[in-house]
Order: sequence, then structure tokens, then C-alpha cells
Amino acid sequence: SASPPSASSNAKWIKLNVGGKVFVTTRSTLVNKEPDSMLARMFSLDGAMNPSDTDENGAYLIDRSSQYFEPIINYLRNGQLIYDAHLNVEGILEEAKFFGIESLIPQLEAQLRACNVHSDNVPLT
Amino acid sequence: SASPPSASSNAKWIKLNVGGKVFVTTRSTLVNKEPDSMLARMFSLDGAMNPSDTDENGAYLIDRSSQYFEPIINYLRNGQLIYDAHLNVEGILEEAKFFGIESLIPQLEAQLRACNVHSDNVPLT
Amino acid sequence: SASPPSASSNAKWIKLNVGGKVFVTTRSTLVNKEPDSMLARMFSLDGAMNPSDTDENGAYLIDRSSQYFEPIINYLRNGQLIYDAHLNVEGILEEAKFFGIESLIPQLEAQLRACNVHSDNVPLT
Amino acid sequence: SASPPSASSNAKWIKLNVGGKVFVTTRSTLVNKEPDSMLARMFSLDGAMNPSDTDENGAYLIDRSSQYFEPIINYLRNGQLIYDAHLNVEGILEEAKFFGIESLIPQLEAQLRACNVHSDNVPLT
Amino acid sequence: SASPPSASSNAKWIKLNVGGKVFVTTRSTLVNKEPDSMLARMFSLDGAMNPSDTDENGAYLIDRSSQYFEPIINYLRNGQLIYDAHLNVEGILEEAKFFGIESLIPQLEAQLRACNVHSDNVPLT
Repeated sequence: SASPPSASSNAKWIKLNVGGKVFVTTRSTLVNKEPDSMLARMFSLDGAMNPSDTDENGAYLIDRSSQYFEPIINYLRNGQLIYDAHLNVEGILEEAKFFGIESLIPQLEAQLRACNVHSDNVPLT
Repeated sequence: SASPPSASSNAKWIKLNVGGKVFVTTRSTLVNKEPDSMLARMFSLDGAMNPSDTDENGAYLIDRSSQYFEPIINYLRNGQLIYDAHLNVEGILEEAKFFGIESLIPQLEAQLRACNVHSDNVPLT
Repeated sequence: SASPPSASSNAKWIKLNVGGKVFVTTRSTLVNKEPDSMLARMFSLDGAMNPSDTDENGAYLIDRSSQYFEPIINYLRNGQLIYDAHLNVEGILEEAKFFGIESLIPQLEAQLRACNVHSDNVPLT
Repeated sequence: SASPPSASSNAKWIKLNVGGKVFVTTRSTLVNKEPDSMLARMFSLDGAMNPSDTDENGAYLIDRSSQYFEPIINYLRNGQLIYDAHLNVEGILEEAKFFGIESLIPQLEAQLRACNVHSDNVPLT
Repeated sequence: SASPPSASSNAKWIKLNVGGKVFVTTRSTLVNKEPDSMLARMFSLDGAMNPSDTDENGAYLIDRSSQYFEPIINYLRNGQLIYDAHLNVEGILEEAKFFGIESLIPQLEAQLRACNVHSDNVPLT
């Protein structure tokens, strides 16, 4: 009962080539969590927006940072904002804005403010 | 006596395409350590659950974070929870819950509580 | 309406093989943000400069560090200098100079000076 | 005088597919430094032990963590235990035990004890 | 005017497969900066030393750590020793010695001494 991913317009599995790195996910991950986002509009079956061009392996090309896309796609998968300490929050925020993941933006902005408070708190002599 | 991995239902070696990154492991790793997990049910030979679709190289597609899957698969390989300091424990916990690795969940929750105690301990002026 | 990337001289999508790692981006990213940079001159359609040789997959070969190129290409994509804490700012500065991304150089130099002030500030007993 | 790596039993170059990541090394690296290890027995020409199955590219499949294998293979290459600060020493120790690299085990155990002393030493108020 | 990289003895572009990871660089990078190094002798056109075997894609096989090779190749590209904070300097030093990059060795040894002074300086109670 296995059906391999294809470039057909209603495939379940979607490959995204984000800046050179390939992510594999499902149409429902891209569409369901944040229905007004750019990704949802590109991959919803009613086709509000054309998906981008594909590379030679059928992955949709996206001219963005793969590194900061990682927490974005994970958020769409499980509804949680989770990222490693070394990642620059500003980078994730840029991607959330670009892809129109509106529910993520206030969370990321709050975490950026918290970071700045911390570094402003360094004791002065 | 070498037999290359195949897509046949009883192959010894299993490729998993987790969010775009391919992991190679054995059926016994996926099945034996945590027999009630989703992975065990997908790959046990009595077939309690259908495995997912496969990509063009025969790897089973899983729409999750590859980064946080790494300590999960290592735990199934050697029975130990080991991860690098920069990894976000919440990310590993999400995956343990998704894959139903029940024996890992209390360990990860205990480590999360320990982390929070640490950061609450910052001295107040 | 999808058109796969090609090696033809006016393709929209461009693959760059930077020191062995492949980045995918668009001609407009390479050309528009910093029109006098080496990348803009290599990939502008009026052809001020010949692009480099291509690898067997049609990616333009660039003999530089992929690691420090990452914030450079992200800057061309979104106009912001964003990088993770563990990255050596001197490495990014070297690449900004090599590629002639003039608007980045003073920002990077300022951040380098800030870092040095910090480490000189270690209290002496 | 170049001879490409092959799957033949006495090839000089060996590919190992460790958990999905491919390492390239030589038979002499695997055999000479630690002659009683599992890797030495698998790849010595007198064949004390059968090597594992190979993947579709002729790499020998090993169901272990690629991340913690990296310092192990480097140790076999140059005789030194060197790893980056962010790597979990317990992970390297697990692999040293699995592969039977006996000369590494006491070094890793000593470093683990040193780490624990450090974290126990946090001053109490 | 593009000429793809080839395995012919006088190609401009060189692929190196270092322990399983492929780096792309030019012959002039390998030869010019440090003419007495092993890499220069392997890839200079007068052929003081035979290059190593090649893999199935024409990359020259080198049985060393890819991770610590990265700052080495960057040094040959731009003449500067630049590496990220998390990288173990001893690992880079091992590679500098192996490849005979003599001008790097005293720099790396000085940085190692500086690190050790720092960690010996931890205040005693």
C-alpha cells in the first residue's frame, strides 16, 4: 500500500528544497496548522497560490535559510516552538515573518525581548 | 553472506527518512527495545501497523524532526539516553511522546525539571 | 508552470557549490541586494563578469568556506546580518570582503570590536 | 595507479555506513591500531569475523550513532582521543565499548570522572 | 567557457573526499599557499608525489577527519587561521601536522598554550 512521493499536485508527501537542504514533510503539516500562511496557500489542494518551481528531484525550491527553517517546520509538525540554545532567535523570527506563521511571531518577539533584558542586566561597576 | 537492504517486508536493515535525513538501522533495534512503541508496531514482522510510505530510495518516510530523533534512535540501539548539551530536551521529549517510547518519557521529564530548577536558582539582588 | 533550474545563462534559480556544499538561491537574490558585489557581477544578465565553472550537477563552483558563506547568502536574501553565537565573526568578515558585500563589512567590523572589548574586560585581581 | 574502492574482500579503502552517515577510511586504519577490536576482526584479511552487510553503494552497514563514532575513527587514524567540547563523553564511551576499542575506555572513563568532579564542585552558599 | 572538473591530471578544480565528506577546491589553493605541504606535493603539476586513489565520483580519498580539515582548507584559501569556538584546537593541530602545513603549527601551538593557561587560572579556594 506504499505510494512513493510524486510531483503530482495532490501528493501526500512534499519535498522542500530550502536554500539547498531538502526537508520532507506532508501536505497536511504544511496546510493544517497555520491555514493562512504562505506554505498553506502554496500547498492547499484548492490552490490559492502556485507552489514554487521544483528541483531535479521534485523538491519545491525555496530561497531561504535551511537552518532557521528547521524550528518553523517542527512547529508546523507538533505545534510547539522548540529550538536549540545556539540558534539565533532573530533568524527564526525572520523566517516566521517570511512564511507568514502569524501565531509564532509574538512568541519569538517575547523571547527576543527576554534575551535583551538578560544582556542589559550585566552588572556595572 | 551479505544481503543488501531491500524494501521487502522482512528485510533486516531499515532506512528511515525522518524529515529529510536518512537514518539506517535494523529491524531488531526498532522492535526489541520498546515493543509497544509506534516504531515497533510499524516494523514488527507480525505487522500490527502498516509502515509509512517510502521515498524513491526505499526509506520509510516519517514527518518529524531529524535532529531530535537522533537520541531516540540511539536509545533504541543501546538502551541509554545520551545527548549533547546544546540539544533542547523538550525537543527530545516531544519525539519520545510521538513515537511512544514510554520508558524514556519519565527520564526526560526529570531532566527538564532539573534544568528549570537550575535556571530558577539565579540569585536575586 | 514549473521550470526546473538549468545551466542556461538566464535561469531564475542558481546553484552554488561553495567548497563542496550546494546552496540554492535565485538570480535576483545574488544580483539585487548588493549590485556591485562579485556575485552580482557574476550573475547579472548583462554579464559584467563570467560566472565560474560548474560541477557535474550544474552548480557554480566557488572555492570558499561553506560555513561562513551561510550568513552572507542569508543577508542577500533578507537584508539582515544574523548568525549563530558559535560562528567566528572573523570568518564571516573574510567572506564579506572576498565577495565584495561592502554594506556588511562595517557591521561585521563593529561586532568584532565589540567582542574584543568584552574579552579585554575580564576583571584583573 | 589509482584503484577505486570496491566491495572486493581485500580493498584498501573501506566505506562504513554508520547509522546513515558514510565514513571513508582504510583497512589499515581499522585493523592496525587496535587489533582485537570488533572493527579489526571484521576487516582484517584473515577474516576472524564476517563484515556486516553492505548498502547499495558498497558501504558496510553499522547500526550505531554516527556522531559518537567520529572521535572513535579519528582515534584509530591518529592514535589520539580528540573531541569537541559539546560532545557527550558518555556517548563516545558507549561506542568505544561497543566496538571494543579497549585502549580508549580508561581514558574516557577518566574524563567522565573529571567532568563529574567539576559539576559537584559548584560552591554552596 | 565552463569546463567541468575531471579526473585528468591537470584539472583546475579538485575534489577531496576527506573521511567521507567531499570538499571542492582548486589546484592553486592546494599548491600555492604552502608549497612544501603534502597537499602541494600531491597536486602540483610537476608531480613530486602521487595523489591518492579516487572515489567513484573522482574525489581524491584522504583518510582523515573532515571536521578538523575544514579550518586547514580555509587557511589555504585565504591565509588566515579562523575556526569556531567549539572546535578542539588539538584536532586542527593534528591535521596541520599530518598535512605538513608548517606555517600553521606554531600558531596552533600558541593558541593551545593560551587555552591551558586559562583553565589553570581557575581560582582556588
